[in-house]
Amino acid sequence: MPNPTAAILIIGDEILTGRTREGNGHYLAGELAKAGIDLRQIRVVGDDHATIVAAVRDLAGTHDHLFTSGGIGPTHDDITADAVAEAFGARIGVREDARAILAAHYAGRGLEFNEARLRMARIPEGACLIENPVSAAPGFSIGNCHVMAGVPNIFQAMVASVLPALTGGRPLMSQSLRVMQAEASVADAFGHLAAEYPDLSMGSYPFVKDGAFGTNLVIRGTDPARIDAAMARLCALFPEGE
Amino acid sequence: MPNPTAAILIIGDEILTGRTREGNGHYLAGELAKAGIDLRQIRVVGDDHATIVAAVRDLAGTHDHLFTSGGIGPTHDDITADAVAEAFGARIGVREDARAILAAHYAGRGLEFNEARLRMARIPEGACLIENPVSAAPGFSIGNCHVMAGVPNIFQAMVASVLPALTGGRPLMSQSLRVMQAEASVADAFGHLAAEYPDLSMGSYPFVKDGAFGTNLVIRGTDPARIDAAMARLCALFPEGE
Repeated sequence: MPNPTAAILIIGDEILTGRTREGNGHYLAGELAKAGIDLRQIRVVGDDHATIVAAVRDLAGTHDHLFTSGGIGPTHDDITADAVAEAFGARIGVREDARAILAAHYAGRGLEFNEARLRMARIPEGACLIENPVSAAPGFSIGNCHVMAGVPNIFQAMVASVLPALTGGRPLMSQSLRVMQAEASVADAFGHLAAEYPDLSMGSYPFVKDGAFGTNLVIRGTDPARIDAAMARLCALFPEGE
Repeated sequence: MPNPTAAILIIGDEILTGRTREGNGHYLAGELAKAGIDLRQIRVVGDDHATIVAAVRDLAGTHDHLFTSGGIGPTHDDITADAVAEAFGARIGVREDARAILAAHYAGRGLEFNEARLRMARIPEGACLIENPVSAAPGFSIGNCHVMAGVPNIFQAMVASVLPALTGGRPLMSQSLRVMQAEASVADAFGHLAAEYPDLSMGSYPFVKDGAFGTNLVIRGTDPARIDAAMARLCALFPEGE
């Protein structure tokens, strides 16, 4: 059976304007590979309602899972929950279970449960809450879409509670060989090897070190025996590699 | 006149598998903001021909400019040029001007001009070359699509030669105020201010420092006088900010 597929949707003007260098996509990419879920696309869009609705419909409709990051805080530019609700045709309002979680959290810390914070209890009908052990305000899953915070440590905590509940596939594994030759010098042999193993994915990544050209040759796949076999061939082709 | 719009397409399995943390999108986002070109989307896809063709058609068809990163090297997994050619309905083959640039470069360095390197002279018909001052192999522009290398220093050099030739708009400027209050405590006043300035984009970004909650309030726009006016109001609302 093929692995399930996934897309990640990152939401926030601060990324498209160059203010913030996004890292949640990279983090989740690594976690999905370990879980055996094939990440097919990462998309970044701004804080615009119609754009988010269209992206959620497109990506949730064409992948087994969609994970979103950002836009579920207390301020006017946090519009992800409403957009996801519209994309799934669900009503949205303050949900009692979410309100209770927030009320207990703020009461325990002597913080005011004001109207801005109440916004974070707005959850689409039919969604399941995603726990937020850092600052209480929950994410949620609706259909195949998992809506999480953009703040990196909260995002990572939410991923940790969502991912184990999903049915994964065979983890993506990789091995690599580092050769001190230019990419073009290894291209021919490496390309022929790749053609012999169509079930594996092989990529080459050039680098320059101390003025000399080198290339990292990476073999990826889900069957460790096949990766070992291809790797043995690769090492025979480039015995000086390491 | 509104600013021109743009999208960025990042191509490479190494990003979707979590091996590489992508930085070209972040770099170009900052350059586009300075040039007055509104970045609307960043998309990352893998080394799959049909996926790249579809993404190029979609993004080039809905933005004034599309910039791509990755997949134009000498190895079998470098398939961007062929996919872009197909997306634009252009034939592709080794072009004499590109071949001459590569031949001169390799001759000057005593490097063999082998078949893998010749792959990098494959350029779609009707495209203009983008200079590569680092390692010679050119990028190209076809229609509104600018195809550049994924290696960061080459990508940046190509951006530097493409961007000044494009008609930009009014640069995106921003000012920010740092307040030591939780996001939810500033949300109400900040949201009302944002509603008064619909021509500006305002975003709030929470942080924790030494256990205390703080928020960066950012005001973005293309009219410096409007940003100054909104910023003066913001500073009056939060006189303790800095």
